[in-house]
This record gives sequence, C-alpha cells and structure tokens, in this order.
Amino acid sequence: MAVVSHLAIVGCGLIGSSIARAAIGSGAVETVTLYDASADVRDRARRLDIGAVHDKLTSCVNDADLVMLCVPVGGMAAVATEIAGSLKPGALVSDVGSVKSAVYEAVQPHLPDGVHFIPGHPIAGTEKSGPEAGFASLFSGRWCILTPPEAEADGEALAMLTRFWEALGSTVEIMTIDRHDRVLAITSHLPHLIAFNIVGTAHDLETVTEGEVVKFSAGGFRDFTRIAASDPIMWRDVFLHNKEAVLEMLGRFNEDLSALQRAIRWGEGEQLRAFFERTRGIRQSIVDAGQDTDADDFGRGKPKS
Amino acid sequence: MAVVSHLAIVGCGLIGSSIARAAIGSGAVETVTLYDASADVRDRARRLDIGAVHDKLTSCVNDADLVMLCVPVGGMAAVATEIAGSLKPGALVSDVGSVKSAVYEAVQPHLPDGVHFIPGHPIAGTEKSGPEAGFASLFSGRWCILTPPEAEADGEALAMLTRFWEALGSTVEIMTIDRHDRVLAITSHLPHLIAFNIVGTAHDLETVTEGEVVKFSAGGFRDFTRIAASDPIMWRDVFLHNKEAVLEMLGRFNEDLSALQRAIRWGEGEQLRAFFERTRGIRQSIVDAGQDTDADDFGRGKPKS
Repeated sequence: MAVVSHLAIVGCGLIGSSIARAAIGSGAVETVTLYDASADVRDRARRLDIGAVHDKLTSCVNDADLVMLCVPVGGMAAVATEIAGSLKPGALVSDVGSVKSAVYEAVQPHLPDGVHFIPGHPIAGTEKSGPEAGFASLFSGRWCILTPPEAEADGEALAMLTRFWEALGSTVEIMTIDRHDRVLAITSHLPHLIAFNIVGTAHDLETVTEGEVVKFSAGGFRDFTRIAASDPIMWRDVFLHNKEAVLEMLGRFNEDLSALQRAIRWGEGEQLRAFFERTRGIRQSIVDAGQDTDADDFGRGKPKS
Repeated sequence: MAVVSHLAIVGCGLIGSSIARAAIGSGAVETVTLYDASADVRDRARRLDIGAVHDKLTSCVNDADLVMLCVPVGGMAAVATEIAGSLKPGALVSDVGSVKSAVYEAVQPHLPDGVHFIPGHPIAGTEKSGPEAGFASLFSGRWCILTPPEAEADGEALAMLTRFWEALGSTVEIMTIDRHDRVLAITSHLPHLIAFNIVGTAHDLETVTEGEVVKFSAGGFRDFTRIAASDPIMWRDVFLHNKEAVLEMLGRFNEDLSALQRAIRWGEGEQLRAFFERTRGIRQSIVDAGQDTDADDFGRGKPKS
C-alpha cells in the first residue's frame, strides 16, 4: 500500500528526480507531480517519465500530501513563500538540503498553521547533476536524517515521513537541527571544501605540468576530483548557510595540518608514522559499519547489501 | 618469450607480491626469487606460491638479471649496500619507490660499475598492505614512470625495463627525476597528506559525535578514509624524502584554502561558485583520459578497459 497518496517534488535535479523514480518504483506513492524553475529542466524531466511535470509551482503542490523541496538551500525561502497559499491543510512539507538550521529558518515562518514541516537530509548523492543523473536506487542502503521540530517529534507526520524514506530503502535517523549541522560539517562539508580546494590548487599548477596532473591522477588525486565535481550552486549554498560549523571544523583542520607540516619540515618521522597509524583505524570502522563496499559507491548509489 | 630470465624482488609487500604475480602470470619472467627482511612476511609469502622466497638477501639477488627494490624509501640505502657485492655483472637494478631523487641518491653510490640502475614508479596501489594484498592485475592499464639517469637514457637496460612493465600491462612514461618528484607531489603526496590530516581531525572529534563520523561518512568523508588507510611507514618515508616539493605544494594549497575560508566568512557567494565551477572541468579531463572508470579502481587496480 502506498505511504503517500500525492507527492509533489519541487526541483528536478539529481535528488528530486531520484526521489521520483524511487517513490514510483517502490510503490510508496500513488501520484507524483514535479516542478522546476527552469523551463529547460522541466522539458528534460518530461522526457523521463518520472511523474507529471507542472509549469506552475502552485499547481504542482496544490493537492499534495507530501511536498519535498529539492532545491539548493539558498532557494528554499522563495519556494516556501510561493507555495504557502496553495498547500492543503494537514499537508507535510519536507526537504533534502544539506544544512538544516538555515532551511528551517528560511521555510518555517512562511508556512500556514496546520501544515507540518519536518526538515530532512538523505546522505546520498553523486557528483552528477540534472534530472537525467537520477536513479531509483540512490537512497538504498543509505541513511536519511530527519530533524523534526519539537512540535512534530512524536506526531503522525514524522511517522509517515519515516515510512516514506524506509520505502525508498533508507534507514532513518532522528537528530536535532544543531547536531545535524555540526556532524555534517565534518563528515561532508569540510571534505568537500578540501577537495574543491586541492583540485583548484592542482589546476593552477597544471600549466606547469602539461597535463601530468590528469595523467598521473591515479596516485591519489583522482579521488578528490570526484568530490570536487559536485554541483557548484548547491555547495556554494551549503558553505554560506552552515558558515559557523564549517569555519570551526576548518580551524581544527588547519591546526592539525600545521602540525603535520612542521613534522615534515623538521623530519620528525616517528610523529608522522604515529599519526598515519591512527588514521588507518577509522577506515576499518567505516568498512565494518557497512558504509563502504568492495565496489566504490560514492557517486554510484549502489546498495550496500 | 620471457623479457627477463631471473627477477629478484626485495620486499614482499603489496607492490612486491603484485609484481611477482603479474610477472609469473604474464610470462614476463622465467624465475622469480623474493626476499623480505621480516621472517613473518617471508613465511606468509611462501604460502602464496609467488616464487622462491629466500632467507638471505644476497642469495635472493645473486643470479638475478633484474633486481626490483620494493621496500619503503627509507630502507633503500641499506638494501643497496647489502646487495652490492652479490650482483651479477650487467644486472639491472630498479625500484618502485614513490620518490625518485632520494632513492637515486640512496642507491646509486653503492652499486658497482657494470650494474645498471634505473629508478621507476608504477602509479598503482591500494590502501592494503602485506603480501596477501597483492594481485596480478594491479598494474594493468596504469602508468609506470621510469626516470633513467643520463647514462642509461638510450640503453638496452631501459628498453628491457620498459618491455617488462609493458608485459605487466602498464604504459611507460620517461621523465627526469626532478620532474617526477614535483608532479607526484601534487598528484599523490599532497592528496595523501590532506587525507591523513582530515581523517585525523575527524578522529579527534569522534568522541564528541559518538560514532556519527563513521555513520554518515557517505557524505564525502569516506573517500578520504580510503586514502588515509595507506601504509604508514611508506608514507612517512615519502614525506621525509620529498620534503621540498611537498612543502611547496602545501604552501600553495594553504594559500588557496585561506582564500576560500575568507570567502565563506564574508559570504562571497559568487567567488565560491566560480571556484567550484572551475574544479568540475578537471574531473571531466580525468574521465576523458581513461584514468577513471565507472567502477572505482583506486584501491582495486581494475584495468581501465
């Protein structure tokens, strides 16, 4: 039986189009409507047969039981303002943004009484963008974090949203908004910032090395380029809207890096070795936790089983 | 027909044992002898049926046409000193170290006249260590950089070593020692240093976040942990022996990171977006160059074809 009768998806990018496919494929919903601010993206989404693509945002969400906001964090407030008057009483609004405090502040004030809002964040993605990049198994075997405000903490809306993500193959974790933003700053936002940065540094050098950066990327660099190919608008918004936590983690990272730099400069081999021994353990924990598979699944979304 | 009659491999870790398997499997050699300084590793190598494991280094290299040094960079000088008196006239010595200037300086002075020395570096590896971690296809579809000293630049020894690596599936690139160390500093050494560092930073935080770093690692962090699980002794030696180039690249990286940090603090969204747009392109170049495949091959050594 369907978990949701009518799902409206705002934003037809990688995540939005993957939710559409997964929701239809799993039987979690009966009807899917979609909207994207870009006419070009709407046209492309129409060709994919992933639900009814509307040309107007208000008509897309009009009758929906669940409205999923899949736009960059910086675009959430404008969408919330525009849909507020068209939402069905009792409807549930959620989102997939990578930061939760900024989204809550951007969306909640605009929503009418009687509409539920529970921010969410599926921990899944690839470096690709656009409706064609989506696929139904993206969320399978992945975590989805929900950050319900106090008023929604035990309600029927949270239970429904949990069942929805579970139907898509995810495991749901409940967390406070602040904790989410701090945990993701270190597990996702800082790694992306560092990857963007090192690829930029190499790019500036590339004129010197005549393509050798690309040629010999298998030595380690390549793994960073995959992350650094992620959507620029999405990531701009993440860094602008989780500034405090990202800057804090970056401060710690810089302190640690200065210590390593000093150890290299002074030839402190034992200190380097001890540091590198320590980092090996955390890798094993990730493998043990089933968050890595034999085949790489970052950027592929293969289920872990 | 075999390229080399008798191959001696010094060091039975991931790379040494992979060379043994690939050389036997491809028919590139007739006889393989192996040695490792650790009695435990020798015992484990014996159980793998990858060639005749000797208990004495000198007897292992005694009759060899090609001696491949597969020990950490810091151990090269000691090995060269010990084998010098046992090498056959006309024998070719090579190595697989990740830095080439330090290896050349450590090995060349000890070798007798009439023995050839051509440093080399296969751009392949995984985060695993030990003889059991090796596999025959590790070098297939990968680059192998050779850095012949001037005297060897056009000789028969270089031609033979090139044929050897080609038989193992690699494409050979000739480069000067200095250029190798500079190119690898940005494509491999700095990425590893950064990965070790960020995993260390997260590890220190982990007591705060109660395992959430592991749980939500699929958000980007996981890709760093794979690199940061690489062999601590090997990497200690790389950083100590390619200090100048690594510190130069690290200096550039830090400058760029400070600029990004400042852009986040001051909310300069357009600057962030433009920076992230730029890094996308380099990823595409790597995919186009065949140095990335649909399945991840860092840590697997799958051929790119």
